[in-house]
Amino acid sequence: MNKIKIGIVGYGNLGQGVEVGLKNHPDMELVGIFSRRDPKTLDTQSPAYLVQDILDFKDKIDVLILCGGSKTDIPKQGPALIEHFNTVDAYDTHAEIPEYFNKMNPIAEKNQKVAVIATGWDPGLFSMNRLMQEAILPNGQSYTFWGRGVSQGHSDAVRRIKGVKEAAQYTVPDEMMINKILAGETVDYNQKDAHTREVYVVLEEDANPTKVEKEIKEMPNYFVGYQTGVSFISEEEFKAEHQSMPHGGRVIRQGKTSKDALSIIDFSLSLESNPEFTAAVNIAYARAAYKLSQEEKYGARTVLDIAPHYLSSKSREDLMRDLL
Amino acid sequence: MNKIKIGIVGYGNLGQGVEVGLKNHPDMELVGIFSRRDPKTLDTQSPAYLVQDILDFKDKIDVLILCGGSKTDIPKQGPALIEHFNTVDAYDTHAEIPEYFNKMNPIAEKNQKVAVIATGWDPGLFSMNRLMQEAILPNGQSYTFWGRGVSQGHSDAVRRIKGVKEAAQYTVPDEMMINKILAGETVDYNQKDAHTREVYVVLEEDANPTKVEKEIKEMPNYFVGYQTGVSFISEEEFKAEHQSMPHGGRVIRQGKTSKDALSIIDFSLSLESNPEFTAAVNIAYARAAYKLSQEEKYGARTVLDIAPHYLSSKSREDLMRDLL
Repeated sequence: MNKIKIGIVGYGNLGQGVEVGLKNHPDMELVGIFSRRDPKTLDTQSPAYLVQDILDFKDKIDVLILCGGSKTDIPKQGPALIEHFNTVDAYDTHAEIPEYFNKMNPIAEKNQKVAVIATGWDPGLFSMNRLMQEAILPNGQSYTFWGRGVSQGHSDAVRRIKGVKEAAQYTVPDEMMINKILAGETVDYNQKDAHTREVYVVLEEDANPTKVEKEIKEMPNYFVGYQTGVSFISEEEFKAEHQSMPHGGRVIRQGKTSKDALSIIDFSLSLESNPEFTAAVNIAYARAAYKLSQEEKYGARTVLDIAPHYLSSKSREDLMRDLL
Repeated sequence: MNKIKIGIVGYGNLGQGVEVGLKNHPDMELVGIFSRRDPKTLDTQSPAYLVQDILDFKDKIDVLILCGGSKTDIPKQGPALIEHFNTVDAYDTHAEIPEYFNKMNPIAEKNQKVAVIATGWDPGLFSMNRLMQEAILPNGQSYTFWGRGVSQGHSDAVRRIKGVKEAAQYTVPDEMMINKILAGETVDYNQKDAHTREVYVVLEEDANPTKVEKEIKEMPNYFVGYQTGVSFISEEEFKAEHQSMPHGGRVIRQGKTSKDALSIIDFSLSLESNPEFTAAVNIAYARAAYKLSQEEKYGARTVLDIAPHYLSSKSREDLMRDLL
């Protein structure tokens, strides 16, 4: 069997997650990692190249997985690379996904490529479950919870505060509220009350903890309105306890099928490595991108536009027999 | 807006569930219920007709939802009706789904119709989740649990025993095992050990409880190998406590993304009315059948073959903006 040939663009947490994750898929192979950094400096056994040489691989790669950041990398790399490659990305700037789609779609169609955008778990699997839950139980209420897990964005924001050497921010959902929802009770949900924030901070030597704590708790958008706990810990404790990147969450729908009958649908994730799981979703959608391109179904797509069988290495016939 | 015009074939629990469920969908309307019974005898406010008159409605119905039984009704009605109508059914004889698909697909294609087969939750939503979980976490283990809920098949089997007047059989999953799996522990799962069976029986006046209990517990396929509890109750208690049809279950996957990192995906359902929820899934896929037929994508499909956006009344653009 011809293996699906994958390229990784960007070698941060997500790119490393794709690299390790591909080992779980015997129908796929990693052709190369493409980085802005000198390939010799990357800590990897896989073939690595400079990203500016990527067009040399135009005919050697079936799908590129774009593992750069959503802020500056993907909006530039996506439109440039979709001219030459099928792509998958985890673009996650929710508000700008339609604009990004509208940029990618015509280029993909014109160049007979497939772009799967905004994969991962949120956006991604959570979006799909929100859609399906709402379509099946229109007379109801949806709830999303995140955590317990590390929010990279919030950790970065705390690290930018003067006097902070290291920081990890955990988003913690209200488990009591979750249990009430799962038990069919009515709850008064809003995102801020449904989550608390725990921050673990290593201070610089001369820093003022009172000032740092105040600055964290009063940070607009990130912490204002949330119940936030700040703990100051040693660098040793930080390294021992807060280096991994667990995450998770759930999308729940309570909906009435008739006046008296309630249904509850719950989709939940518990992840020891957030970047590795996001990578795992990206890999499955890379297979979908490959299969769609084989069927000449070109253009940009989100997880909402792709039938489940495309994710699998099995044929539709085998799936119908074994999984239905 | 033109509403999607729905017909219901068969007026048992599922048909009644579709009738009540359609009230939750402002973009759909019920044209009629088609039954083998005299329409005047049906306990409904909706228009009702004899099923043999259904061809008079060829141009008045967009999608028929087939609500008959999988044993004898659907295998006959499906191939006969797909010639003239788009159809959705909850055909659930797992082993014979491929054969049924192969019967429906060519007729649907030839007559430019769409057949969505084997919808519901198992087969259906559970199948889809099994596929996606396995595709994303290939290095792992899947677990399916059913219940706590009433199994109609098992209840019927008990009712056929001599001396049994009424019976309800609850399938009960091993909650401790579920909690272990969700906590990431390794368990020794097999379907029989993971479920127990609770049977509530109303005896005929002259029946021998010891004999009935023995006959239940030794019934091959249904009860042998399962830990089964039998309780004899009064007809009053049965009517008060065991007339509703709750069900549910979950599909869980434990999978390693790398040597050290475990991910757990859990999809669970808790349903106060099993037939109404199955109907709710059928209704969402009836919308999908309609949209597919509008796009001239004819043929037979299962839930594995249909992109999520087809289930929704919203446009792809709105979904991308609001749900992704």
